[in-house]
Amino acid sequence: MATVIRSMHDLTGLAPHQIRQRIRAGQWRRPTAGLAPGYTQANLAVVPRALAYDFLLFCQRNPQPCPLLEVLDPGAHEPRELAPGADIRTDIPRYRVYRNGTLAEEVDDLRAYWRDDLVGFLLGCSFTFEHPLMDAGMRIRHIELGVNVPMFITNRPCKPAGVFHGPLVVSMRPLPADDVVRAVQITSRFPAVHGAPIHVGDPTVLGICDVQRPDFGDAVPVAPGEVPVFWACGVTPQAVMMQAKPVLALTHAPGHMFISDRRDSTLAVL
Amino acid sequence: MATVIRSMHDLTGLAPHQIRQRIRAGQWRRPTAGLAPGYTQANLAVVPRALAYDFLLFCQRNPQPCPLLEVLDPGAHEPRELAPGADIRTDIPRYRVYRNGTLAEEVDDLRAYWRDDLVGFLLGCSFTFEHPLMDAGMRIRHIELGVNVPMFITNRPCKPAGVFHGPLVVSMRPLPADDVVRAVQITSRFPAVHGAPIHVGDPTVLGICDVQRPDFGDAVPVAPGEVPVFWACGVTPQAVMMQAKPVLALTHAPGHMFISDRRDSTLAVL
Repeated sequence: MATVIRSMHDLTGLAPHQIRQRIRAGQWRRPTAGLAPGYTQANLAVVPRALAYDFLLFCQRNPQPCPLLEVLDPGAHEPRELAPGADIRTDIPRYRVYRNGTLAEEVDDLRAYWRDDLVGFLLGCSFTFEHPLMDAGMRIRHIELGVNVPMFITNRPCKPAGVFHGPLVVSMRPLPADDVVRAVQITSRFPAVHGAPIHVGDPTVLGICDVQRPDFGDAVPVAPGEVPVFWACGVTPQAVMMQAKPVLALTHAPGHMFISDRRDSTLAVL
Repeated sequence: MATVIRSMHDLTGLAPHQIRQRIRAGQWRRPTAGLAPGYTQANLAVVPRALAYDFLLFCQRNPQPCPLLEVLDPGAHEPRELAPGADIRTDIPRYRVYRNGTLAEEVDDLRAYWRDDLVGFLLGCSFTFEHPLMDAGMRIRHIELGVNVPMFITNRPCKPAGVFHGPLVVSMRPLPADDVVRAVQITSRFPAVHGAPIHVGDPTVLGICDVQRPDFGDAVPVAPGEVPVFWACGVTPQAVMMQAKPVLALTHAPGHMFISDRRDSTLAVL
């Protein structure tokens, strides 16, 4: 039995495939934020083939909350584009198993649940645009506080597709007013990972009554002189998927992402 | 019977929906280049639902040659996103009907061919990025010569999806070497319509032996001091679709596009 790794520092400097190997060996069962900096981390969603067309179409129609990075062939578990040799069933530290839209269990390994008709979707995550914001000198409040990003259900419906429909969920980051333009520019370069903010400034426009009471994640303070900036959030497709109550759906556990071999910088346009 | 319109000039200043109305009435059966400048024109591809997942996945995996603008629900013929009130069966000047991958006929109206299981795909076209290039002072050779853009089958395979596979097809525009950087910048802003060039400079890298012998379209001269610039081309999905020999496939006729209500500028990132 391989030794459990206690600290992120013991993974510093390792390549993505080396970290995935340790995850696969059961040595790391914790969140992945901060691991393999510069490499793209992805959300995982798996549904039966019978629902895959509707879900793919939902992502196509709602690219900001559902930025597809790779769709695997039915039954396939190797993400050949993002990480050749990897296995989406074993290389994520923690998974969730949903039955009929309800969380059934959290597990370390999906092999016992796998079926030949399952289709894996890997979607972009906000880690990819937070790094360039920080490189530009911006401080990301929830990261500094060591809490989860605050997320809100908005009054904006996603474009429906087949059985999938529901409201847009957004994440919020407070930024000094002077940084807003630069933040829009930087994140616009990353349409593959949520892209530009969907709103700046007035939470009530999105139907958010109290920015201190998020629907998911943790509240963070908005200081005087700061503006709340809202981005489409990867929780949207998960919420929409659960509402459709699929017989079986498999996802990563929150914060426990798939670490790919793709460099964040390759996702930038311009 | 409405009068046939003889000259583009008689359509000058009309809004997209007014032009579509005249097309629907049978008054305009000619190419759409130059009509409703500033508004997005789109390629049409229609396949039975049984093939739609594979085709949607092919587009997701190959966004440069297959930039999806809208996917209609099965049986639906109104593109609600791009042009509410329009009808993809009647609002294009000329269509092609393919049976088992072979061109069966060219028609003016798809209503007699329509079925409840057909899925319509509208894809971006190069007109949208040619205008900003011309606005920046670049001269587009095939437009100046009044011929079709030269297109080449490359040695680069697309990423396959289900029954769909085949080589990338590119279009070529010669540009003065000094304009190449600006052309890359401008077209990078339009990932929804082929985006940045896929290659600049050496046709042989793409397996193109003679840039004066295109596989489709017309040859155009490359002058001394000019560099051939290659973009992914919307002929790719058509070629790939025909190779899969679907029982039935419907498309626009070359050059006869769907004129949407969407402004080109809304497709720009940054």
